[in-house]
Amino acid sequence: MPDTVPSFAPRGDKAAVEEGDRLAPKFDADGLITAVAVDARDGAVLMLAHMDAQALALTIETGFAHYYSRSRRRLWKKGEESGHVQKVVELSIDCDQDAVLMRVETAGPGAACHTGHRSCFFRSVPLGAPPSPELQLTVNDGGKLFDPSQVYAAAKKTDTPRF
Amino acid sequence: MPDTVPSFAPRGDKAAVEEGDRLAPKFDADGLITAVAVDARDGAVLMLAHMDAQALALTIETGFAHYYSRSRRRLWKKGEESGHVQKVVELSIDCDQDAVLMRVETAGPGAACHTGHRSCFFRSVPLGAPPSPELQLTVNDGGKLFDPSQVYAAAKKTDTPRF
Repeated sequence: MPDTVPSFAPRGDKAAVEEGDRLAPKFDADGLITAVAVDARDGAVLMLAHMDAQALALTIETGFAHYYSRSRRRLWKKGEESGHVQKVVELSIDCDQDAVLMRVETAGPGAACHTGHRSCFFRSVPLGAPPSPELQLTVNDGGKLFDPSQVYAAAKKTDTPRF
Repeated sequence: MPDTVPSFAPRGDKAAVEEGDRLAPKFDADGLITAVAVDARDGAVLMLAHMDAQALALTIETGFAHYYSRSRRRLWKKGEESGHVQKVVELSIDCDQDAVLMRVETAGPGAACHTGHRSCFFRSVPLGAPPSPELQLTVNDGGKLFDPSQVYAAAKKTDTPRF
């Protein structure tokens, strides 16, 4: 983990931020940007989480996805407990530089969601009528790829990506 | 536009939220959830933005993507100015229900970014070294699909999706 504060470019004007060639991320009031991980194999969206400056810097430096857990209020290397680390194949940033997109290869069964599903977005919402408390979600995948009670119960630490 | 406050299910416990079949979105302190739009043709991530309760409800009811613009502080139907509306083919919600994913068909040239690029994530970040102000982004697409000065200069309103 670096001892120094991560060093990005200054924000500059709108044109520089939106179309320039310097990385000048815009962290929000909580010091976070949004991060989306997609499967490098087929582009499927796996998960959405957040990064602080340190998590973004570590992701860029190490090539493994790091996030900031808002619930646990700490840096979080994806897979530190489950072993399902995410190797980043490509990292891109959006026009106003407040979100990053990562194409990742996931160690283990290829699932990103702590529920055991491949993607966190495993439930679809019916369209065409106003939402109501009765509106019923449908599961849009083939089921879980791992049993969370097995993977997280062990609570084992691993630093060895299983590629 | 509906006159009533959108009606979602109550949040319930962790299991109900994460694995249940009811839509119980978690809006943040600013009343927003995150929304990711991907191209229904090939799954490419196009953009990331935010929705308030009304934008989410209108998206579900009308089948066209609505967002909440944090900079303009108002409801925003994607394409209201450019004509590049997003017809939602599928909308899914993530495990903790604070983010939605939409597969969309985009009217016009098929671009989502106001810069003219297909995707807002058109610049990639080199990996393998700590970030620095000198780090250089590279453009990862084939260039712009439309000229923003032409599309937005007209500032024309259109309610007619061009499908």
